[in-house]
Amino acid sequence: MQFTTRPPDTPSVLALAALLDKLARARPLVHNITNFVAMDISANVLLAMGASPAMVSAPEEAAEFAGRADALAVNIGTLSAPGLEAMLGAARVMRGAGKPWVLDPVGVGATKFRDEAALALLALSPTIIRANASEILALARLAGVGASNAAPRGVDSRHQTSQAEDAALALARRFACVVAVTGEVDFLTDGARRAHIANGSPMMPLVTALGCALSALTAAFAAVSKDAFAAAAAALIAYGVAGEMAEEAAEGPGSFRMVFLDMLHALSAEDMALKARFSA
Amino acid sequence: MQFTTRPPDTPSVLALAALLDKLARARPLVHNITNFVAMDISANVLLAMGASPAMVSAPEEAAEFAGRADALAVNIGTLSAPGLEAMLGAARVMRGAGKPWVLDPVGVGATKFRDEAALALLALSPTIIRANASEILALARLAGVGASNAAPRGVDSRHQTSQAEDAALALARRFACVVAVTGEVDFLTDGARRAHIANGSPMMPLVTALGCALSALTAAFAAVSKDAFAAAAAALIAYGVAGEMAEEAAEGPGSFRMVFLDMLHALSAEDMALKARFSA
Amino acid sequence: MQFTTRPPDTPSVLALAALLDKLARARPLVHNITNFVAMDISANVLLAMGASPAMVSAPEEAAEFAGRADALAVNIGTLSAPGLEAMLGAARVMRGAGKPWVLDPVGVGATKFRDEAALALLALSPTIIRANASEILALARLAGVGASNAAPRGVDSRHQTSQAEDAALALARRFACVVAVTGEVDFLTDGARRAHIANGSPMMPLVTALGCALSALTAAFAAVSKDAFAAAAAALIAYGVAGEMAEEAAEGPGSFRMVFLDMLHALSAEDMALKARFSA
Repeated sequence: MQFTTRPPDTPSVLALAALLDKLARARPLVHNITNFVAMDISANVLLAMGASPAMVSAPEEAAEFAGRADALAVNIGTLSAPGLEAMLGAARVMRGAGKPWVLDPVGVGATKFRDEAALALLALSPTIIRANASEILALARLAGVGASNAAPRGVDSRHQTSQAEDAALALARRFACVVAVTGEVDFLTDGARRAHIANGSPMMPLVTALGCALSALTAAFAAVSKDAFAAAAAALIAYGVAGEMAEEAAEGPGSFRMVFLDMLHALSAEDMALKARFSA
Repeated sequence: MQFTTRPPDTPSVLALAALLDKLARARPLVHNITNFVAMDISANVLLAMGASPAMVSAPEEAAEFAGRADALAVNIGTLSAPGLEAMLGAARVMRGAGKPWVLDPVGVGATKFRDEAALALLALSPTIIRANASEILALARLAGVGASNAAPRGVDSRHQTSQAEDAALALARRFACVVAVTGEVDFLTDGARRAHIANGSPMMPLVTALGCALSALTAAFAAVSKDAFAAAAAALIAYGVAGEMAEEAAEGPGSFRMVFLDMLHALSAEDMALKARFSA
Repeated sequence: MQFTTRPPDTPSVLALAALLDKLARARPLVHNITNFVAMDISANVLLAMGASPAMVSAPEEAAEFAGRADALAVNIGTLSAPGLEAMLGAARVMRGAGKPWVLDPVGVGATKFRDEAALALLALSPTIIRANASEILALARLAGVGASNAAPRGVDSRHQTSQAEDAALALARRFACVVAVTGEVDFLTDGARRAHIANGSPMMPLVTALGCALSALTAAFAAVSKDAFAAAAAALIAYGVAGEMAEEAAEGPGSFRMVFLDMLHALSAEDMALKARFSA
């Protein structure tokens, strides 16, 4: 007789919504080593949701600080050599401690420096990868699990998330991680489970670094959920629902950015549960 | 017969309010070597109040630039080795020229790198230290004038300002500086005088780097007041009153951040004098 | 019989306004190596106008990334040694490829480090220089084409643009570039043609880095217009008109910054054509 491990169930929308209050109660310390454009909005998104952000990025202290953090978000948007050293040191600590860390491989595929950094970080087993479709395609090809010749032009995606589903599945299986591909419809997988999240607003790509800040929020949810697939799903739904609520009150990208933070702060588990467009 | 120096009087609320117009007329050049998260909001706070901000942070030029500035604000939030070199060079220039400089020891106690930086900066005689309660407790312990084992977890305070009053007094006396501990109720001391400021809004900790920007504003007030205790008191009152005015119009942390800048710009000496909750 | 090259015509306001739609259709990839204060607002201004911003600033990859970009904006606000290396590498690529790049010499004249950087960048033939009057005066003197002893105090201008017209003409002729001096009334020249743009709002200098973000937008327009004089004129008019529209709805510098982004996004070619105060 043989025992097999049953794959985890797909979380229900109600269970995902419940993570919102869990996050606010736990107030996790989220360590961010992120790009200079994303720091302000990432910190404000985390504070609005009840997390405690810190932006400690020097190689002299990043690993030590990671030891105090509940989760880590690494983003290579404005990569530098000392920044990469800090990222690797902090990610190593998280891996060693069994704490979650999220990789946001901004602009991977655009330069050799970025590709080498992304590969070195991938080797440290990110819990979750959050990226746009072009980046997932480039990352999969770089990691030898995807055949596409696609590469991002800059940091904005040139592909639909549906084009990156196979690459996301391959990455998730190869690196035993959760992969979240965000776009008009988000795709989420841990290699076994798959889900689509159709929340969000067309205003979101008009505000810089909202994707980066979503990676930070994903790390915050991962700090309060052992199931990283559920953590990422909750982050994507919360973000998308708040985006929809913000769109109604915004008159352009400037006001959208402001109202979006108000809505993230006001967001309730009920809003999430009622408005989620989550299909798994 | 022996003469003793009479300690300076506690400034009146009217005298503090008058510093607001003095600041706007003098338009002091405030040199900031601050963290990447705080740069945007610090510059916008200074501009809203009539000061002229500059963010010159490279070791190659920070000391030279400090020579032109009317005040300096140093913040170790996203500390780096070259940034620390720039801070030390600029602070030395300010001390040598008898010009005011403010130290904001973000996250001191969290890593060795941060602790060593804070001690090296303390040795250069900051005019004013502005920090939260956890940071003041950690700094006093580090400087050997406080017994608490308290340390911040991240960059958000885990203590009430009332818990840090003894540490603040000890730091002020040991380093002959003004210490401002901010929180729900602010505590301010120069070792002899003490004051509490009860202005502010619970929205303020929900917006990143508002404390950092307050340190920058404190430097601006120090540029127009020989009495650093009065400068810090005026900054805390102005900030807190504007925060209260902003809270009335805000619907969340996103709109609070925006309205707060509007209110700082609109703030009058009358508002300050009438709404100050200053007890000395 | 002798043929002479006829200087290009001064563009009409209608032709300038048409560049707005051309920019949104082309969605140029604008590479920014800019200061830490300006990154967020620069990226948001570019996104609001339909361009695709990227902030790749490490010397390891800046030149390689510049090869992908349609235009480059270089800003020395928070200059560093590695940042300067990245700027020089990227500017060299743009010059070699015949692609436009914009120089924003923030605070030139304030330190030797800044002066040397500005001269090294000038030697790489910027397509457009965008600066305030004090900076243009300092740059012209530094380059040996201006007699003024004027130097900026910090990063805010102490001069009217009218005082810097001769310096701008001299720079434009010596370096065969377009020079845009912005202030209450903007002055624009390519050495032969001259124009004044009287759009804008007194709120604009109360928001940090709006000048820096204008340099980024100028690079975006240069990506879609072979005539750099027209590109700069279109950027100045679009910015100024959006500023006027924002002023009507703003209640202070905080709300101005937000509404300004909304207005840039909503701006139409008709708005530009009808409201331009362009005299050439």
